[in-house]
Amino acid sequence: MSIDLSENRRYQQLADNFASAIHDGTWLPGSRLPAIRRVAMAQQVSINTVLSAWRLLEDRGLIESRPQSGYYVRSMLPAPEKSPGYLTTISTPGQAKLDLIDTVFAAQNHPDYINISLACPRDGDFYPTAKLARITASLLRRHPQIIGRYALPPGSETLRKEIARRASYMGMKLTAESITLTHGCMEALQLALRATTRPGDCVGLETPTYFFLFPLLSSLGLKTLEIPTDPQTGLSLDALEMVLQEGRIQALIAMPGLQNPLGCSMTPENKKRLAALMNQWQVPLIEDGLYDELQFREPQLPTVKAFDRDGWVIYCTSFTKTVAPDFRIGWMAAGRYSKEIARLKAFSSMAESTLLCETLAQFLATGGYDRHLRSLRRRYAANLDEARALIAQHFPVGTRATLPQGGFVFWITLPDSIDTETLFHRLLQEKICLTPGALYTLSDRANHAVRLSCCYPFDDRYRYAISRAGAVACEMSGLPAGAVEPRLA
Amino acid sequence: MSIDLSENRRYQQLADNFASAIHDGTWLPGSRLPAIRRVAMAQQVSINTVLSAWRLLEDRGLIESRPQSGYYVRSMLPAPEKSPGYLTTISTPGQAKLDLIDTVFAAQNHPDYINISLACPRDGDFYPTAKLARITASLLRRHPQIIGRYALPPGSETLRKEIARRASYMGMKLTAESITLTHGCMEALQLALRATTRPGDCVGLETPTYFFLFPLLSSLGLKTLEIPTDPQTGLSLDALEMVLQEGRIQALIAMPGLQNPLGCSMTPENKKRLAALMNQWQVPLIEDGLYDELQFREPQLPTVKAFDRDGWVIYCTSFTKTVAPDFRIGWMAAGRYSKEIARLKAFSSMAESTLLCETLAQFLATGGYDRHLRSLRRRYAANLDEARALIAQHFPVGTRATLPQGGFVFWITLPDSIDTETLFHRLLQEKICLTPGALYTLSDRANHAVRLSCCYPFDDRYRYAISRAGAVACEMSGLPAGAVEPRLA
Repeated sequence: MSIDLSENRRYQQLADNFASAIHDGTWLPGSRLPAIRRVAMAQQVSINTVLSAWRLLEDRGLIESRPQSGYYVRSMLPAPEKSPGYLTTISTPGQAKLDLIDTVFAAQNHPDYINISLACPRDGDFYPTAKLARITASLLRRHPQIIGRYALPPGSETLRKEIARRASYMGMKLTAESITLTHGCMEALQLALRATTRPGDCVGLETPTYFFLFPLLSSLGLKTLEIPTDPQTGLSLDALEMVLQEGRIQALIAMPGLQNPLGCSMTPENKKRLAALMNQWQVPLIEDGLYDELQFREPQLPTVKAFDRDGWVIYCTSFTKTVAPDFRIGWMAAGRYSKEIARLKAFSSMAESTLLCETLAQFLATGGYDRHLRSLRRRYAANLDEARALIAQHFPVGTRATLPQGGFVFWITLPDSIDTETLFHRLLQEKICLTPGALYTLSDRANHAVRLSCCYPFDDRYRYAISRAGAVACEMSGLPAGAVEPRLA
Repeated sequence: MSIDLSENRRYQQLADNFASAIHDGTWLPGSRLPAIRRVAMAQQVSINTVLSAWRLLEDRGLIESRPQSGYYVRSMLPAPEKSPGYLTTISTPGQAKLDLIDTVFAAQNHPDYINISLACPRDGDFYPTAKLARITASLLRRHPQIIGRYALPPGSETLRKEIARRASYMGMKLTAESITLTHGCMEALQLALRATTRPGDCVGLETPTYFFLFPLLSSLGLKTLEIPTDPQTGLSLDALEMVLQEGRIQALIAMPGLQNPLGCSMTPENKKRLAALMNQWQVPLIEDGLYDELQFREPQLPTVKAFDRDGWVIYCTSFTKTVAPDFRIGWMAAGRYSKEIARLKAFSSMAESTLLCETLAQFLATGGYDRHLRSLRRRYAANLDEARALIAQHFPVGTRATLPQGGFVFWITLPDSIDTETLFHRLLQEKICLTPGALYTLSDRANHAVRLSCCYPFDDRYRYAISRAGAVACEMSGLPAGAVEPRLA
């Protein structure tokens, strides 16, 4: 890759100038940047240089492109502060934590509540359901006997071939034989843990992390070690390396692609280093790639599995967030654990429905999955922007939020004085459901955070729920609304 | 229940007389009994008395009714001998056992092999697939958005209500709330074990028992205790009581309804005693009721769960053997473990597809499930009869077999000199797949047994496979064919 360094410097300089202007309030959130041609003339640079600068500003979350309209300054939400370099070992989630999970889960499931919390769509037309329905109906018309046949592992070869083909888009060289179909990603994680650990072992986790991992790990008799995770760049590899050197974990679960709840991604360089570390120390990495195909960026970045040398990475994912939530069809590529995983799946839940697998396979082969993914990413990106703008407007001064590069969840830290579990309970009385940060760690360090989910149609109820959450947080803290930095208010 | 004792004695006497005549060869297998009216006249009893006697002989497997034709003497296969009163504790299946499971499973799954082994249909029109397909297609036409909604626990209330309603037919008083939907019965058993045991615990098993339990238990770090099980009457409750008194097991898995691989059933009295024992000693029973709805007898006998006083029985079953194998929808009623099981399901594999659950619910409510079950039972009963007749004709002298009261699997013991793992490998070379007895116990006491499965259309390939299995067994042992007792030959 040859880059003209002077050109490189020129557009970076231009981007930095505009970034300063945005940060010092010269360009306010929501304002439109001047036309590219005008900037090029004024700055005496080429149009390409301006475009490169704009792309850089976009990557940094400062501006956004609106089709047929130009570039706009994004609503400004500062990023959460770096986590201090802590490590926490806690064996078992306490009863209070389990009860909180139950309460949140029941509320998320309540049809009358406004949900700004659950990381899965319950309404709306985000998915190609009509097309999938036509494929299923056609399969049933031609082969009704599918229903009467027992599904046996390893299950639909057509689907496993399609999966292997698509996996190459993110740098993974897989064969149909190396793939095990699972009942969603949750089962893939569960099987991966059972294959790689023994009761009493310790598993490394990002912090914060997906809340259902805690009861799952506990149910398997596993201890946990929360490893520092930066809200913008993900798992701290320096901390991980220390942990590996000291032999403190027997497996690691991480979401290096798009992390839940942070929404952040590791760089390809860090993913490569992570793969190298796991292979060097021969400790299995359970890579949860649930949101990988929802990266806004194209081409998609490679997974950690793409850099796996000796099969120490177990890649787990699912189509529940991307195409057919109800089908619950997931898959895993288990590297050196492949044979054991195939066995475990058979005597843990046997196989997946052939009808659903064949429907999905046919959709992947000919249904326009990539076109669907592009449209889904655009909608989620727009939703995230709007949600962040509402937070900036309605949440208390001092609120910060992550800027996801894909998916539909992000992480908001409120001023320390605001306990978000209290906020959760107060909003629940108004039938608004958000997820308190306390769910995502066994420590008490996320008590002032919440995760928001943007996989819903942005209607007035949803907008009201976010603004109302902000208003209650302001009431609780006595702080004024306006999460943007004061100089931009 | 008031019974006219003299009448009772009269028909029992009549039944005993005919039983002796069958056993001493007066009535040969396959011969037709005289018309009921003629017997009534000859014996000077009422027609009802003859009918009662015939029913008793039918229950004892000696005669069978053929519609529009009358009663016939069944092909005679002596029952396997009672197991001696042994107890075995073995912690882990050896590698050889695991490899054997893999080999058998791969062979069962091979499309070119003739399968007389796998306990699940892969061909034929045993199931109401056209009707189910119509329901699915209609649901998709009216509500395609189902596919786009994330399925959350506890899942379809309609289905759980239908299940609760039907459960009452076998004496279980359940509510929709107490039922957890699972990914087939295998997952129900897996969850039940995880909820009731800790690594290092010991689980009681019938012997022989379902072979996938061994790797499952081993993967959970559990030890096993095989408890004597009679091929005709099931689990020895005396042995169990001793084991419970000595505190040797922390849970018990059993199939008191229709046992796999034996095909035998416990009497309602024994089921009641089993429930009482588990409640008395406060040890959970995981009752695998997979084949319960395939009892040939109507009304269906109650389950052990029906006698459960304090919630120590966890009932597990599935619709995979009765109506929609591909859907893999199972359920469990976990008594005192209900809350924990609901949680475990959520963080182990979340939920079941709403599309499939609603299809099944609608079928149960209006699709003629009972009519379908009756037809399925008749076909399986006919298949079992034909298979037993073929065994009687082609297997070596000294072969014995169980006489199932339902379902489609049964257990055959060959003369001790015949190692059925060798038989299995020899038949595999001819692309015939049966299941060697060694799979069903960690001991070496079933090395001369096989399980046969009759859930296939009885075509010439299937008939050939059974007769060929018999011929190879005769070759191996040097014994003549003709498994029936010599005096009946």
